[in-house]
Amino acid sequence: MRYDVAIIGTGPGGVSAALTLKNRGKNIIMIGSKQSAKVSKAHAIMNYPGLPNVTGAQLADAFSKHLEVAGVEITEDRVSTIYDMGDFFGIQGGNEMYEASAVILATGVVTGKAIPGEDALLGNGVSYCATCDAPLYKGKDVAVIGYSKKEEEEAAFLSEVCANVTYIPMYKEELDLPESVKVVNVKPTEIAKEDTKRIIKSEGDDIAVDCVFVLRDAISPGQLVPGLETEGAHVVVKRDMSTNIKGCFACGDITGLPYQYVKSAGEGNVAALSAVTYLATLPKQA
Amino acid sequence: MRYDVAIIGTGPGGVSAALTLKNRGKNIIMIGSKQSAKVSKAHAIMNYPGLPNVTGAQLADAFSKHLEVAGVEITEDRVSTIYDMGDFFGIQGGNEMYEASAVILATGVVTGKAIPGEDALLGNGVSYCATCDAPLYKGKDVAVIGYSKKEEEEAAFLSEVCANVTYIPMYKEELDLPESVKVVNVKPTEIAKEDTKRIIKSEGDDIAVDCVFVLRDAISPGQLVPGLETEGAHVVVKRDMSTNIKGCFACGDITGLPYQYVKSAGEGNVAALSAVTYLATLPKQA
Repeated sequence: MRYDVAIIGTGPGGVSAALTLKNRGKNIIMIGSKQSAKVSKAHAIMNYPGLPNVTGAQLADAFSKHLEVAGVEITEDRVSTIYDMGDFFGIQGGNEMYEASAVILATGVVTGKAIPGEDALLGNGVSYCATCDAPLYKGKDVAVIGYSKKEEEEAAFLSEVCANVTYIPMYKEELDLPESVKVVNVKPTEIAKEDTKRIIKSEGDDIAVDCVFVLRDAISPGQLVPGLETEGAHVVVKRDMSTNIKGCFACGDITGLPYQYVKSAGEGNVAALSAVTYLATLPKQA
Repeated sequence: MRYDVAIIGTGPGGVSAALTLKNRGKNIIMIGSKQSAKVSKAHAIMNYPGLPNVTGAQLADAFSKHLEVAGVEITEDRVSTIYDMGDFFGIQGGNEMYEASAVILATGVVTGKAIPGEDALLGNGVSYCATCDAPLYKGKDVAVIGYSKKEEEEAAFLSEVCANVTYIPMYKEELDLPESVKVVNVKPTEIAKEDTKRIIKSEGDDIAVDCVFVLRDAISPGQLVPGLETEGAHVVVKRDMSTNIKGCFACGDITGLPYQYVKSAGEGNVAALSAVTYLATLPKQA
């Protein structure tokens, strides 16, 4: 099935876009995690107009409730690549490929620079998607560099398939991992290739594995959508939230500063209505 | 006294700007009416994220309450002209002249001349927003008085939801509308209420519908701020909401379509933070 619009991301930008598109009667798919961690973990938000002094958790709940009232469901999946197919987009999830006539990128901004060696080895012993690539490393040794707590689930999944899983947490929260997963607290400084192995270098001992899974909240927009015009970590957008790729729109932190909830929500609305205008230019599907 | 920032207008853009500036410790004055009529008179707002299915009155009250919590007062006055004095602005109110180092224009679009009866029936069978109010007229009869070609898209959208859509073009360009939309070429002279119907009167036959959508562009805000770069009814802004005049920012409907509450609120936030950045470039006052 081909959706009218695929929304990638479930923060304020994505939520706003989904509500407006639903209101306009569009057939949408919203892909991401159940709640945006960036919203739900905020301490206090003083300047989201209409909701005085809410905590992040309260705002996240208000968004979830609003989606529910509007009948929007979240498809929990992790998008690795979005392919521009001309008059539609192919959206690569963990196991599934989705199709949509237009796409709205609302993935937030990628914090943190790539680890030296990561870009060069991507697809060659470095992976961003455990679900996709686990079968390739059945019975082998892998490492996960996890940038948020939800990556522990990916590591647990890998531990069912791979011989040995090493987990390197890039955050401070308490861990909740299967006993078989070995935790190493180091800060990776490089990923290198030596013969068939990939080596994670740090101030500690080298870690040699067959594949390094680097799991961040979001991947950089240029990697997500090949051909997308970017400026540093951000997508270049016009005032109508269009990008250089026809039918591809963006909203929220991914479009640049300021990183503010209501700014993202406003842009999500604009992106949605621009997508509606774009859809009207497409030939009707049979 | 010279304020850091004067905010002209009390709709979602102005409210959002005020909350963010207050949060940043700025000395502000907010000038306009106690509540934005355009907000408080809206029927139902489905797509302001976090506040599901609020009426305009509820959203306006939520904004008022938020301003109160934040300690922002509204100075009820009507601004006629804003003078760029170099490193500050002189703001001409009804009887008083205000001074501020920066200005945020959040006045909304000044709609042209109202059709007799339009103002009185706004929110009561007369609407300015098809996206917002279409769901209320599902299966009913509506008319669109469209002041520019782009309103045809709104009429097309309404035709998917409503039983019958009558379109009255107030311009001369060729029309591009779904077949189901009935075009009537008249010049409305009045909108009247008769029982549950709204009647568009003209030199032709009366048109009786359940709601009249009056969709227009607006007149130039260049009158408000001499020297301001405008495009039709709108102020030209960059992505950071700056205008061609240093220290003068804009947000909300005045910056262009779409006319949507959350879009305005998002832009108000951006305008506020850009004003904060601008203030930091000014020499400190004694």
